[in-house]
This record gives sequence, structure tokens and C-alpha cells, in this order.
Amino acid sequence: MSYQAPIKDMLFVLNELANLQQVSQLPGCEDATIDTVEAVLEENAKFCGEVVAPLNAPSDKEPSFWHDGQVTTSAGFKVAFQAFGESGWQGVQHPQEFGGQGLPKIVATPCTEMLNAASISFALVALLTDGAIEALLTAGSDEQKARFLEPLITGKWTGTMNLTEPQAGSDLAAVRTRAVPQGDGTYKIFGTKIFITYGEHDMAENIIHLVLARTPDAPPGVKGISLFIVPKFLINEDGSLGARNDAHCVSIEHKLGIKASPTAVLQFGDNGGAIGTLVGEENRGLEYMFIMMNAARFGVGMQGIGLAERAYQQAVAFAKDRIQSRDLAGSAGPVAIINHPDVRRMLMSMRAQTEAARALAYVGAGISDVAHYHADEATRKANLAVYEYLVPVIKGWSTEMSENVARDGVQVHGGMGFIEETGAAQHYRDAKILTIYEGTTAIQANDLVGRKTVRDGGAVAKSIIAQVRETEAALAEVQGADFVAIRKQLADGSAALEEVVDFVVANMKSDIKGVFSGSVLYLKLAGIVLGGWQMARAALVAQKKLDAGEGDAAFLRAKIATARFFADHILSGAGGLRAAIVEGSAGVLALEVDQF
Amino acid sequence: MSYQAPIKDMLFVLNELANLQQVSQLPGCEDATIDTVEAVLEENAKFCGEVVAPLNAPSDKEPSFWHDGQVTTSAGFKVAFQAFGESGWQGVQHPQEFGGQGLPKIVATPCTEMLNAASISFALVALLTDGAIEALLTAGSDEQKARFLEPLITGKWTGTMNLTEPQAGSDLAAVRTRAVPQGDGTYKIFGTKIFITYGEHDMAENIIHLVLARTPDAPPGVKGISLFIVPKFLINEDGSLGARNDAHCVSIEHKLGIKASPTAVLQFGDNGGAIGTLVGEENRGLEYMFIMMNAARFGVGMQGIGLAERAYQQAVAFAKDRIQSRDLAGSAGPVAIINHPDVRRMLMSMRAQTEAARALAYVGAGISDVAHYHADEATRKANLAVYEYLVPVIKGWSTEMSENVARDGVQVHGGMGFIEETGAAQHYRDAKILTIYEGTTAIQANDLVGRKTVRDGGAVAKSIIAQVRETEAALAEVQGADFVAIRKQLADGSAALEEVVDFVVANMKSDIKGVFSGSVLYLKLAGIVLGGWQMARAALVAQKKLDAGEGDAAFLRAKIATARFFADHILSGAGGLRAAIVEGSAGVLALEVDQF
Repeated sequence: MSYQAPIKDMLFVLNELANLQQVSQLPGCEDATIDTVEAVLEENAKFCGEVVAPLNAPSDKEPSFWHDGQVTTSAGFKVAFQAFGESGWQGVQHPQEFGGQGLPKIVATPCTEMLNAASISFALVALLTDGAIEALLTAGSDEQKARFLEPLITGKWTGTMNLTEPQAGSDLAAVRTRAVPQGDGTYKIFGTKIFITYGEHDMAENIIHLVLARTPDAPPGVKGISLFIVPKFLINEDGSLGARNDAHCVSIEHKLGIKASPTAVLQFGDNGGAIGTLVGEENRGLEYMFIMMNAARFGVGMQGIGLAERAYQQAVAFAKDRIQSRDLAGSAGPVAIINHPDVRRMLMSMRAQTEAARALAYVGAGISDVAHYHADEATRKANLAVYEYLVPVIKGWSTEMSENVARDGVQVHGGMGFIEETGAAQHYRDAKILTIYEGTTAIQANDLVGRKTVRDGGAVAKSIIAQVRETEAALAEVQGADFVAIRKQLADGSAALEEVVDFVVANMKSDIKGVFSGSVLYLKLAGIVLGGWQMARAALVAQKKLDAGEGDAAFLRAKIATARFFADHILSGAGGLRAAIVEGSAGVLALEVDQF
Repeated sequence: MSYQAPIKDMLFVLNELANLQQVSQLPGCEDATIDTVEAVLEENAKFCGEVVAPLNAPSDKEPSFWHDGQVTTSAGFKVAFQAFGESGWQGVQHPQEFGGQGLPKIVATPCTEMLNAASISFALVALLTDGAIEALLTAGSDEQKARFLEPLITGKWTGTMNLTEPQAGSDLAAVRTRAVPQGDGTYKIFGTKIFITYGEHDMAENIIHLVLARTPDAPPGVKGISLFIVPKFLINEDGSLGARNDAHCVSIEHKLGIKASPTAVLQFGDNGGAIGTLVGEENRGLEYMFIMMNAARFGVGMQGIGLAERAYQQAVAFAKDRIQSRDLAGSAGPVAIINHPDVRRMLMSMRAQTEAARALAYVGAGISDVAHYHADEATRKANLAVYEYLVPVIKGWSTEMSENVARDGVQVHGGMGFIEETGAAQHYRDAKILTIYEGTTAIQANDLVGRKTVRDGGAVAKSIIAQVRETEAALAEVQGADFVAIRKQLADGSAALEEVVDFVVANMKSDIKGVFSGSVLYLKLAGIVLGGWQMARAALVAQKKLDAGEGDAAFLRAKIATARFFADHILSGAGGLRAAIVEGSAGVLALEVDQF
């Protein structure tokens, strides 16, 4: 099953919802003109569709494997990654001075979506490398930047994030890996890291591990964690590769999905100590790691959207092709199953959720660019706060919805969906990691509640809700049943979200467990309301263009219909979520542990 | 991970909600006294927990395999199935005159749940055999009954259902397999059947295929389908096995889940014709097959409940064992993750949905027994109508919820859940077939809308809703926030369900596609309202016992808390479903096919 990037929808979102034009006027973003962006997207679509997408199903059947410390990746991965690097795709959003293209996030984001739609397993090596680049750009010394960035940005080397240890999953306070200073500016690293994505592979010359570890005098807990660069091969003064470092892959995991991407157990220092260098200052490792994680979290949200789009396209193709049973409205013989209402409902649900999450993520990317590039500091700050509110929602909601979409994708296929060779089941298996890694949905929700809502008394959340209300007012100006329905559901949704924000802020001190027992539901509510908001904005733009006789009428009418579907079928769940959050904590917390 | 059958909850449901006592007073059900039932359940729990449950994970890793027409099942399956047959477990609900135990469905139902909790792959052979037995009991000749029933009921032979063909998935009108009369009372069968569960295996001496096929002069469509018995080995006059029949397994499928259960492609008649005998009358095959399917559909509902219980137990065990992060309310060090509110929320959601679906299914089984055994015909008829309304809900909703429960089970495990050896992922993979086979959820929903709601103008649905209202009135008599919340959500739910029933009945003629675009949502709404009703009934019983100082107080308080959770977190979704059904068809149906 091939993948055709939804360029038309992407450009619609970029131009009409995510303010690409505004971003392209920011200092440093001048290259991101609409024409350039369109050309970049089309080239990227070609690469992802022709080079990467065909690898996805075969690499699931013949995953990467470990032998004697080496990992051999699936057929085609190495060549494709070389082409990826050489074509400049690793460097889309990274600085030109280190070999990147220097384009804003709003341009990199659809590229990330396409790469993930093509193959999540493949895209992960780029995602992790992006994270390492971000961390070095922020906290690396000039020497480290000079040494590591160019090879990473051009795809010669790749990066990893080494957080998790056997005894410490999401709880970084429990990190035990040791870093012993050698007096020469280097450290020796000792410890075991697990769940290291692309911790070992054969697709690049070198692997740059970024490793959380404790120095001997470090305080306990998260305040005593430092970040180290530990390359697989040490680097000589002239930049050439030197000795093999004492960081070895002792096994890879047998996983439910994303089987082509090796998930390594790494052993540091079993033969005398792995040589590492400190990034930034001691004991500030967690702070730097969060830089990588925030970029990676947004990226995982894009994985959800890419996967959902791929699953949707596959289900549509099957539903158009598969002939079975007569049409309910009467037909002589059997018809394509896309004509059956419940198949149609599932396809619309897949489509609507994917489009909504895409729109929210692209809007988020645009806001991030304003936060990064705008000349005015107050504007940067205000946009940063909004972007940071959105990151856990984009990560959490886009991935949660991708599970539902992948599930519906299997269901559309009926019995064939359960047979692995059909390919629908792979998406169902692959999707399941997305709500877990880079912080589970609960971890995202903790962030949304704590740092993003309670810390400012709900101010940013309320400012966003005020913008939703402006869209509601604009909806009231448009005639027709679709807009009445969209407005009603959006108004109910924003009211529910506002009530929940107030509830969270008001009860955090007095009933912290009660608040957190609804945290994931709050995240989901924010997702559907803000996603529904983007769908409503899209419908307004579409109607305006239709009224003006501009654009592709079928495309624009589909936008309105999809927004209507989203309102009636997805946004309509807001009231239930509100009740579960505001009234539901008693039921969550009533049992004693031994009653389970 | 072991499985401990929830006998205490099962007995509570049987005694307090499903009217076991009333059933045990029906003619023919006298053996089903409370003491006997308790003994049967405890024996069955022992067998399932000790013999079958340990096979589940290993058989997923080393599934059944095909070689040269033979299928070798996973290690331990053959021995376990022999023990299953010899211990009488295949015959629990089948007539004593053919070697069964003759117990009512209300007793067989928890046994089915336990077997499926132990291993769905293993349980499938029993489920399919039950279906064959039901069909023969209803439509078989005396000779057929005498020849086939005893070996099937005692587990010497097994049965299959052969419906699906490559060109005909859910659409039986497209069946092409031919049955050519030989003039001696037998037929020769020619055709290909796919997705045949346990169509070939090594666990029993013989396999009795029940096959849908067309005789030469049969009318087209579903009215021209007949049902045939086609044994793997022909049976001699003395009942001993004769020649190998011309029915051969040419391959088995590589599936997402239930890997240990072989899913066969069967080729009939490639070497001259497979010999079969007609069941009942020609062209009435579909009618007989529906007998098997109705039993099997209820059974698949129990698979969902069994799987959900197993996934829940595994998640609880992990959550009690896994130590990570401090308690939100403050603790010196890290605590077991069951103390974290979102983990608790997921466990409660798994628990509440499983309990609700169990209660609804057991209540349904009791109603089925009244419909079957009651002396008064009008009572039988009235109960049959209610039971038949419930079957698609029990099948559809229990399996849909089992997907959610299995998903949450993985999520509770975090990253470990994605690693296959943990075992949580198997449930997630296995669950995905349950909403597909024996009729997808959409097929169940079509049945619910068409035959079960519209045909009687919603009368049965309304009669059930009237009973829900009685429970609401009883809830109003009880003090306390839990009961206020339960009553509110149940009242909102039953109002939503009634509105939807009216909508379905009123719009079927004028807007059939609009009605069916909400059919699955109607099924889900019926599931949560009727499941929530049972939870409310359970809470009322629990409170009454607490007030009287009877029973296990912790167990009874947990019942109330779980009902409260179900109300606030699951039943609260009723309003959103109502909106999507009643207002949401425009969005489902707006696009033209080429807009996808």
C-alpha cells in the first residue's frame, strides 16, 4: 500500500490556519515563502513516498536483528538513510552554519509528518538525532558544536537519548548511571540504559549517545543528574573516527510494533569505562534533556498524525476496492463497502481526527516559530507560553487518537484486517508505542496540569479559550445547519474546557489526587476542543472561499463536512469528559489497594 | 502471569442480579442449585487456572503451524483438550442424553468466561464445537444426532463453521460452494472456505465441518443456501472412523493475535468431491447457521469479558508490584504505581467495564434460560425477545470494551507493556479479532437496529428501558453522593437511549442510511446504559446488605465505588453518543466517494 502525502490539506492548513505568511515575514524565516514551502513539501513527499514508504511493511516482517553486539537494520534502511542525509532532510530546521537548511518549524513539521507516515520505524532515527542536535545547540560548548553538529545535521552520524534504566522508567530521580571525572575534562561512564531507540545500528558511521548520569558528589534526585556526550566511536582531533568507546549494545527488545527500529539495552563501562564529555554544567542534565524531550514530544505527536494519515489512506483504498453486500438504499448487486454507512462513519472519524490533529500541530509549529524568531520579546514570550501549553496536548492527544484511528483502520478491513499481510494490523501495533514513549499520556497530562495550567493560574489556557470564543462568534455569522451544529458543539466544548481549567486551578492544593485522577481526561478534552476549534476555523475559511467562488469547491465542501462530523461525533464527547473530570474523582480513588 | 477466576464476583452476579434461584426452579434446571453451581464454578476455575491458563503466553510465542496439510497445535493443547473433554467441560450445557451435563446457560456462561480468560485461542475449539452441537440439536435428523452429538459433546471430536469464502466476507448471499446430490442421500461438496477456526488441528480424532453450500437448483442469494455436515473422516455404520474425506487444509493464516488457534483455508472437493449430508431441509441453511451464530455471538461476548478480566488482573498485579515515583500526596520514596491517580483511573475503568459487561451477559444468560425452560409459553416468548435484543449488545459491546481494556492494560505497564515478553501486548493483539468475527460490530448493530428494534417498533427496547426506570426509582430511595451520581447518570443514559430508540424507529423508512450511520453508536449506547443499569442494581444490593450487616463489607463497598466510577466515567458518555446518532448522520454521509 503506497502513501500519497496529503499536500493539498497540508498547504491549506499552513496557509489558512497556521499563518505561514506571517511566519515567513519573521527575521530569519525569509526563505520560507509560500512557493519555497510548496516546493520543499513536494520534494519531501516524493522522497518519503518513493524511497521510505515502500520499506515500511517489509521491514516489519524482517525487523532489525542483533548479533554479537552489532545490529543489522532492515533491508533498504541504510541506503535510504544515506539518501535522507545527503538530500538535506535531516537538516530542514537546523542552522545553515552547521549544514542545515535553516527553515522554520512550520516547514519542518509537515516533513516530519510525511516521514512518519512513510515509516515510523525509519523516522525514529531522524527524530532522535533531531533531539541530540537541539540539546547541543542549546547547551553544547562551541567546541562540541563544531565537532558534532555538522555530521549529525547532514546525516553522517545519528543521535540517541539515554534516560531510562531498568529500575527507572518515567522516574528520572532514580537514575543510577555514574560519571567519574578523569581530571582531563573527560568522564568515565558506568551503567545500564534500556529502551534506547537506535542505540545501535548500521545506518551511519557513528552514534552520538546523550546520556544522563550522576557525578560522584551529585545531590540525590533529579537535581543531581548531568548530561554527557558518549560517542560510539571516539573522535580524533581532526574529526575522524577514533577508538571504539566502551558503550555496547547487549540486546534489543522483541516488541509489539515499530519492529524495524532497534530498541537497545546499552551497557556503559563494562570494559574500563565509556569516555564521555559533559554537556553544559553539572547537575543541569535534566533541564537540557527536557529541551530534547520537548522537541521529541512534538515529534511523537507528528508520528501519531503521520500514522493516522497512513492508516486512513489504506482503509479508504480498501473500502473503495472491496465489493460486498448491497447498498442499503437499494442496488442490484453488491457495492464497494465505502457505501455502507458504518464504514463511512469510521472513515470520516479517521479523517476528521487526523485533520484536526494536523491542524492543531501545524498551528502549534507556527506559534513556536513566532516564539523563536519574532523581534519583540514580549511577543516571543507570549507565544512561547501558548506553544508550551500545546506541546503536551499535541503529543498526548495526537497519539491517543492515532490508536483509535489505527483500530478503526483494522475494523474497516474486517477479517482481512486481522491478517498480517494486509498491513492494517501493523499500524495498530505500531501506534501503541506512541502514547508511551517520550512520556506516557499521563506524563503529558501531569505537565499540562502542573507546569502549564496551575503554575499561571490557568491564564494561558483562558487566553486560548478566549480565541476559541472569537471563532464561535464568527460561526454565528454564517448560515446553514453545518455551522449551527459546529458552533453549538464548539461552544459546549469550550465551556466544558473552561470549567475544567477552573476546577484544576481551584482544587490543586486541596485535592491534588482528585485533580490528577482527571488529568488525562483534561488532556483529551483540550485536544478535542482545540482540534475542533481548528476544524471550525477551516470550515469558516472554506465557506468564505466558496462564497467568493475561489478554490476547489469539492475540497472546500469536504472541509465543512469534515468539520461538521468532528463536531457531532468527536466534540460531542466534551460533556462526558467534563463530568468524569469534575465529578469522577471519587470513583477513581475510593478503593483501597487491597480491594483490587 | 496466572489467572484467578473471580468466583466471588461471578456468584454475586448470578445470585443477586441474574436470578439464579429463579432459574434453578425452572423445569429441567433443578440441578442448578446454588451449591451445585458454586461447586461447578470452583472446579472449572481450577481446571482453567491450572491447566489452560499457563498455555496462553507460550502458545502465542509458538503458535500452531501447518505442514503438508496437517496442523500441529501449540505444546500442551492436545493434552489439555483431552482433559477438557473427559472432565465434561465441553458438555456443561448440552443434553444429558448425549453425554452432557444438561446445566442451564446461566451456569455454562461463567465457565465460558473462565475458559476464555485462560486462553481465547484454546477456548475457540470449544466455542465452535458448541455451535455445531446447537445446530445439530435444532436441525439434525435423529440419525445425525445419534451419530455426531455424543462424540462432540464429550470432546472426542470437534466442530467448525464454514461460512466465509474468498469473495464473501460478511455477505453470505455471495456463497458459491456447490453441493451436488449423489442420489444416495449424500452430496458432493466443491468449494473454498476461508477463515475456518480450527478447520484443521491435531487435538481430536475427527473434525465435523458444518458447511454452507448451494444445491444445483437453489435460488440465488441467501435463500438458496443449505447446510451440510462434512466430516474430516467419514464415519462407518458402527460409528468408527472411515476414509479420509476430500476436505483439506491448504494453509493457515498469519494473524495479529489468537495465534495458537489455527485459522484454516479449507479446500472441499479437489479430489472428486467431499462427501456431505444435508442438515434439515435444503435452502434453510442460513436459518440453521444463525442458530450456531447466535450461540457463538453470545460466546464471543464472553470472550471479550474473559479477556478483559485477564488483562485487568495482569495490570493490577503489575501496578502493585512496580515501584516508581513518589506519591502525589507526599511520600519519602517511590511507591507502587497503583497509587498514582491515572494508573488507578485506568484500573478502575478496566474493572468497571468488565464487571458491567459480565453482569449484563449473565443476566442475559438467565433470561435465555427462562426463554428456554419456563413452563409458560408467553413467558418464554417474552424472555426470548429480550434475550435476542441483548445478544448483539452483549457481543458487540463486550468485545468493543475488551479492546479498550486490553489497551489500558498495556498502558498501565508503560514501556514494559510494549515488550512482548511482558504479556500485556498479547491481550491487545488477541482482542482485535473479537469485534470482527462472528459478525463485526457493524453486523451486530445492523441486527440490533433492524430485527431487534425496528421490527417491533421499539417495544422490547422500551420494555427494558422501563425496567431501568424502576432501578432509577430505587436509587432515589438511597442516601449518599454515590447513589445521587449513579442515579443522575443512569437517568441521563436511559433518556438518551429512549430518544435514540424513537429516532431509529421513526427514521428507518425515510432515512435508512442516516439511521445506520449511527447503528454502532446505538449499540454502544445500549451497552453502557444496560451495563450501567446492572452496576446500579449491584450497588443497590450492596448497600442493602451493608445496611443489614450482611456479607463482606469491603467487597460490597467496592461494588458501590465501582458502580459510581462506571456512572461518572462510562455512562457519562451517553449524551455524546446520543448527539452523534441523532444529529450526526449529515457529517457521516456528506462526502461523495471521490472526495475520499
